[in-house]
Amino acid sequence: MMTAPANVIPYATLPRFARRFDSVEVSQVRELYKLIEAGNVISFAAGLPAPECFSPKELAQAFGDVIAEDGAAALQYSNTEGYLPLRQFIAERMTAKGVRAEAADVLISSGSQQGLDLIAKVLLNPGDKVLVERPTYLAALQTFSVFEAEIISAATDEEGLDVDDVERKLRQHPDIKMIYVVPNFQNPTGRTLSLERRLRLVRLAQRYGVRIVEDDAYGELRYRGQALLPLKALDESGLVIYIGTFSKTVSPGLRLGWIVADRETSLMLSLAKQATDLHTNGVAQRAAHLYLTRNPFEQHVARICRIYDERCRVMLNALERSFPASARWTQPEGGMFVWVELATQVRAAELLRESMRQGVAFIPGDSFFAGRKERNFMRLNFSNQPPRKIVEGVERLARVVAGHEAARKLIPVSLVRSAA
Amino acid sequence: MMTAPANVIPYATLPRFARRFDSVEVSQVRELYKLIEAGNVISFAAGLPAPECFSPKELAQAFGDVIAEDGAAALQYSNTEGYLPLRQFIAERMTAKGVRAEAADVLISSGSQQGLDLIAKVLLNPGDKVLVERPTYLAALQTFSVFEAEIISAATDEEGLDVDDVERKLRQHPDIKMIYVVPNFQNPTGRTLSLERRLRLVRLAQRYGVRIVEDDAYGELRYRGQALLPLKALDESGLVIYIGTFSKTVSPGLRLGWIVADRETSLMLSLAKQATDLHTNGVAQRAAHLYLTRNPFEQHVARICRIYDERCRVMLNALERSFPASARWTQPEGGMFVWVELATQVRAAELLRESMRQGVAFIPGDSFFAGRKERNFMRLNFSNQPPRKIVEGVERLARVVAGHEAARKLIPVSLVRSAA
Repeated sequence: MMTAPANVIPYATLPRFARRFDSVEVSQVRELYKLIEAGNVISFAAGLPAPECFSPKELAQAFGDVIAEDGAAALQYSNTEGYLPLRQFIAERMTAKGVRAEAADVLISSGSQQGLDLIAKVLLNPGDKVLVERPTYLAALQTFSVFEAEIISAATDEEGLDVDDVERKLRQHPDIKMIYVVPNFQNPTGRTLSLERRLRLVRLAQRYGVRIVEDDAYGELRYRGQALLPLKALDESGLVIYIGTFSKTVSPGLRLGWIVADRETSLMLSLAKQATDLHTNGVAQRAAHLYLTRNPFEQHVARICRIYDERCRVMLNALERSFPASARWTQPEGGMFVWVELATQVRAAELLRESMRQGVAFIPGDSFFAGRKERNFMRLNFSNQPPRKIVEGVERLARVVAGHEAARKLIPVSLVRSAA
Repeated sequence: MMTAPANVIPYATLPRFARRFDSVEVSQVRELYKLIEAGNVISFAAGLPAPECFSPKELAQAFGDVIAEDGAAALQYSNTEGYLPLRQFIAERMTAKGVRAEAADVLISSGSQQGLDLIAKVLLNPGDKVLVERPTYLAALQTFSVFEAEIISAATDEEGLDVDDVERKLRQHPDIKMIYVVPNFQNPTGRTLSLERRLRLVRLAQRYGVRIVEDDAYGELRYRGQALLPLKALDESGLVIYIGTFSKTVSPGLRLGWIVADRETSLMLSLAKQATDLHTNGVAQRAAHLYLTRNPFEQHVARICRIYDERCRVMLNALERSFPASARWTQPEGGMFVWVELATQVRAAELLRESMRQGVAFIPGDSFFAGRKERNFMRLNFSNQPPRKIVEGVERLARVVAGHEAARKLIPVSLVRSAA
């Protein structure tokens, strides 16, 4: 056998991983979830649906029936785009929401997270610019980071994305390739983009030649106010790509989401999906479809909304009653999250350590900001805890916040600054 | 509102997709599958398991029980690495095959295709070189192409990958980053890498500082001869990444595969998976685990092997009886495929058109070659058709081949050459 040439570098000293992971960090949130699982904690951390909102009996029946009656097809390889009757069902619901879509326009994905992965794969070259809300969904930031995108953040306020700031950013960076937006009950803020801003955003995107990726993970979960048209319904040019999911309405464990895009993009997405995982679990697709046709979906969603509405109100009331005057928070009309702003000098990540000792978990807001982190925000999930626990958890948390503020105030501000 | 600056390009004229798709082609195979689905065709095309080898009753029961008994956990978000008891089950089987692995070393993927996607994502920068067998699994080529790898092919023969040629290629291209190999009953050839070559390949990879990705999709399906140690079992340095799947033994529709890698790579793969689809379907993972613990897996696999063994022999005998003397084919000891080499002047893709008219489908070998295509090969799947259909299909196909050769021979070779 020949010996290795001199220019060969020993295996152990080689750079082992692709550049795209240089700036991807191990999520602190992920580590937090492990702590929460281990302990007896009131968790406002993860964005989990309430297990009481699942329909295990009906789903068990649907899975059993699909495999028993149609096992040969359900258990076999199937087509990349997804199970046609499920795509048809989704197309009809999309059409009812104002997005004209046929089954052929719907690609089933393994959850809406895969929607983000496929879209990034199909659209983004390394260094391409993506405009996001400040703050935004942290796992979208991770996905864009894996595809080596440069993230540009635009400001948000009570009406969601600040479209004037979007236009400023588009003028500063005429090479922005896509805008990622969660228009309904945004993660992490719970805010909703107003109709007027939706219209302006779509027009801006058309004018500047930019794609919009509309992540509508929470759209079904509206507890008050008027449903607003999706951005995709306001656009005739095909630049909006819509992402939906059954994770918040049927079950996240099934990993069923979808993408609606123009035909050319759909074809590319389906090519990308083929090379990514061939197709989405066929048993889950068929079982979900059977479940959805047997059980009135509107009623099921209405029930979830009643439950979450109560939890949302309970949390907002508890915050109002117990949190210090220095704190402010959003007033979501739906979704799963309240976003709390604490006094400027408070570090939410530090607060979390004390809070975990008191048996309450939340997500420090830091991870939701691309670029410069804001340190004094908390994301509170209200969907996964019963009202009684929400009250107890918010009260404990309020004491932790008050204690933290009091301790901070003992130190002169100048010292706090130099220590920070 | 401001108007767009002059340097903004109208949306419709923008380059719409990422460079990584410039060289990805719409798979002809995929189009072929659609034709096959539509018509009454004896298909040797797709690599489908026989539906008779699924266990719909047992799986329906397992799905029903998992959701009914543990719905709150099964239907909820779950951890990225996968369901621990399933990882434990896999680790034990891997250990039995000579690969020392604990549950912590096993990452559950959405089928083994996702294993390829995650590995490429974690290891490959654009332009990185990947060495593959010539020919090789076509969807692996697609995945590597999406990650803009440069493909280097090494020759193969009856014992699989030609390790001397691998060493030549490693000397020519000292920057080859990984070797992708399907050591057992390879797709498309059905050939198996000999033990001596496995040892040499691992040593070469160690010496040249190259990763090996061992895709063992077919390893369980051995019908004769001695099982050989996985490459991963022959390596102490952690450079081999092993990919496995339940697609050929339990069901491809469930999309359940796994990756076994060194701890550092496993962590990166799990980060990548988190940004790709959060986690694999939890209901399917739990149901598969319940099914696997209730039903003796060895016996189930033995039954599949008996059925496929017969089909394999029937196909080989039918080829022997009916194919023209100009054709040669492999003698697989397992797996799902026979690889047929036709006379040099035959174009398998042309043959396919006539063959489809005669109601028989196969995959022309062209797509399995990176770089220069060989045009005179066919991949024949034997697992998905009952013996009677295999005989009938091979006989029809033999007539098509003979007719094609006869027609070709009417034209002087010089003319054939200039027309080609």
